Amino acid sequence: MKKNYMFTPGPTMVPSEVLLAEAAPMIHHRTPQFSHIMGEVVDGLKKLFGTREDVYLIMGTGTAAMEAAVANICSPGDKAVCAAGGKFGERWAGLAEAYGCNAVRIEVEWGNSLTVAQAEAALKDHPDARALYITQSETSTGALTDVEAIAQLTRESRTLLVVDAITGIGIHPFKMDDWGVDVVVSGSQKGCMIPPGLAFIAVSARVWEIVEACSSARYYLDLRAMRKNWENKATPFTAAVSLVRALHKSLQMIFEEGLDEVHARHARLAGAARAAVRAMGLELLPRNPVNGLTAAYGPEGMDTGDLIKLMRDKYGVTMAGGQGGLKGKIFRIGHMGYVSEEDLLVGIETLEKALKDLGYDSPLGAGLRAARETLA
Amino acid sequence: MKKNYMFTPGPTMVPSEVLLAEAAPMIHHRTPQFSHIMGEVVDGLKKLFGTREDVYLIMGTGTAAMEAAVANICSPGDKAVCAAGGKFGERWAGLAEAYGCNAVRIEVEWGNSLTVAQAEAALKDHPDARALYITQSETSTGALTDVEAIAQLTRESRTLLVVDAITGIGIHPFKMDDWGVDVVVSGSQKGCMIPPGLAFIAVSARVWEIVEACSSARYYLDLRAMRKNWENKATPFTAAVSLVRALHKSLQMIFEEGLDEVHARHARLAGAARAAVRAMGLELLPRNPVNGLTAAYGPEGMDTGDLIKLMRDKYGVTMAGGQGGLKGKIFRIGHMGYVSEEDLLVGIETLEKALKDLGYDSPLGAGLRAARETLA
Repeated sequence: MKKNYMFTPGPTMVPSEVLLAEAAPMIHHRTPQFSHIMGEVVDGLKKLFGTREDVYLIMGTGTAAMEAAVANICSPGDKAVCAAGGKFGERWAGLAEAYGCNAVRIEVEWGNSLTVAQAEAALKDHPDARALYITQSETSTGALTDVEAIAQLTRESRTLLVVDAITGIGIHPFKMDDWGVDVVVSGSQKGCMIPPGLAFIAVSARVWEIVEACSSARYYLDLRAMRKNWENKATPFTAAVSLVRALHKSLQMIFEEGLDEVHARHARLAGAARAAVRAMGLELLPRNPVNGLTAAYGPEGMDTGDLIKLMRDKYGVTMAGGQGGLKGKIFRIGHMGYVSEEDLLVGIETLEKALKDLGYDSPLGAGLRAARETLA
Repeated sequence: MKKNYMFTPGPTMVPSEVLLAEAAPMIHHRTPQFSHIMGEVVDGLKKLFGTREDVYLIMGTGTAAMEAAVANICSPGDKAVCAAGGKFGERWAGLAEAYGCNAVRIEVEWGNSLTVAQAEAALKDHPDARALYITQSETSTGALTDVEAIAQLTRESRTLLVVDAITGIGIHPFKMDDWGVDVVVSGSQKGCMIPPGLAFIAVSARVWEIVEACSSARYYLDLRAMRKNWENKATPFTAAVSLVRALHKSLQMIFEEGLDEVHARHARLAGAARAAVRAMGLELLPRNPVNGLTAAYGPEGMDTGDLIKLMRDKYGVTMAGGQGGLKGKIFRIGHMGYVSEEDLLVGIETLEKALKDLGYDSPLGAGLRAARETLA
């Protein structure tokens, strides 16, 4: 018997209760029954986002919501300042360029977080920027950005703040309204504990004027159509009924646990994972790490791709390797969503075994002990 | 007890085997295990599309695939000739306009089908058109377009033929390569018998040069990225793992039944539904009807919205009303995907009962008898 565990930063493990909710018999999306479910789902998402604004569901993955946050806001030629400190920060710039915008990159070394000083300087250098695009939790490096602090710079400015909170929402606290964030996007297969295929976007009141005036091409991702249809608790196009039902169930589970406790659990898991990695004699990549995953360098001379493959094929444990320039150099332990303390210990133990298999000389159990001590 | 039946033209009923495949434990999308599933899924879709070209999966609904067929082909200012004979034909024109194209409408009365003569005249009037956008099965009216005949006009022309086969694929035979169709799009919640959330697109060899040169903004729907990633049996962004697994199972069921038999079953169901509607003294809307749904006018003076609501709330049977200018005037019986002859008889019987409830004077059982006779 080989049990499978996923410690990937999306897709993540999905509770059986949620999988079974996804498998419920099909219902039509334009019925009172489904509208009721959608209403409750959106109410739940509003709590996760920390907003009184509506949260719109997009039938697509996180990148679709990111694209909606560009295509509805930046017209061709508009200046978009993008914090490019990882694969997903770079994606903001790539999206802006795909839409003919003037993408100005704030260069952030991969593993570092955008600082308030960097953001302040960029806003000063580019007072004409339509929006500042940032990443709360940079999944490629595990670095956390202080969204609240940066929102203090933009909330009085004409430059909008757009935040990719795809691996942030449901993991780190998010207070869109209190912080004064203008646009927030997220996805389903992370903190929300459901399979991939849904994405979310919320926008503040002052954004609508810009959305209306925006000249970029969009149809499927048109926020105007989303807002109009939501007046009838409907989506502009067919809703992904089964995924929405899964989300309905997973949000119930999140609120049963309590959102504060969900955030606290992620903080505990992250603390334990970091302690374990350090106890194994390995170095963390990010200076200011997120709570949804732990990114660390592999031992000197080891291709972390081999480590990932060995854990998956020999032990049934799936973690993630590095992306872009970090390929082969780092490994990433996802501990977001449906991950318990016990699960994490399985992951740590497997990591220790696999490192030893590959010849890394570290006292077996050191990581496990450190994780246990941190959790206790 | 009230059993629920869906006779809607999408979403449609999903086999329990498929729902349970969707509920399988999550796996990561960048693993050999998932690539293997994707490979088999794409092989199956190629048979449904009648093509040796790859079929790309889009995490989204049918409209996302339609948008991909505009955003990758028409640059701003390009001329797009659109056959606008229903809500979905109109959607082609709406998409073209959203992308700043010159959308030329071929006006087709709702309920009629685009004729070869109309297509020929439009191609002659607009030899500079980048593409002719048509709808195989117009879901809002139930009218069928002869794609094969129209492809004979475009295959030697520089104007591409783009076909919305969303409620066509898996219901009517489709031979993309033999007919010489350039772009075909479809969706998951119709003939493919799975929940909504996936869409498909296939393009012919001659299209790629145009895709490369196209200047329209796109990122999530960029065909170039889809092709590049498929070299490694992967998708550019996270795949909707659970929906793909559902599709893997449903395609197996389709090929176990036999694709020819699946098409023949839909023809039988459609024949029976039409005979039943006529026997109830009602008039069919389309002159040349599709096999996936039957659209008919309600009795004089009856709002078909009331009929739909009564069937749903009193009898647990969901059919569809009219869209756009046909709202309140027609009803639509979906019989696509996972619908058996026995299911259809339940639908017909319910329709008869509900019409009688609403005061329509027709001999009870006339429709049922006509359907049974046609099926026998």
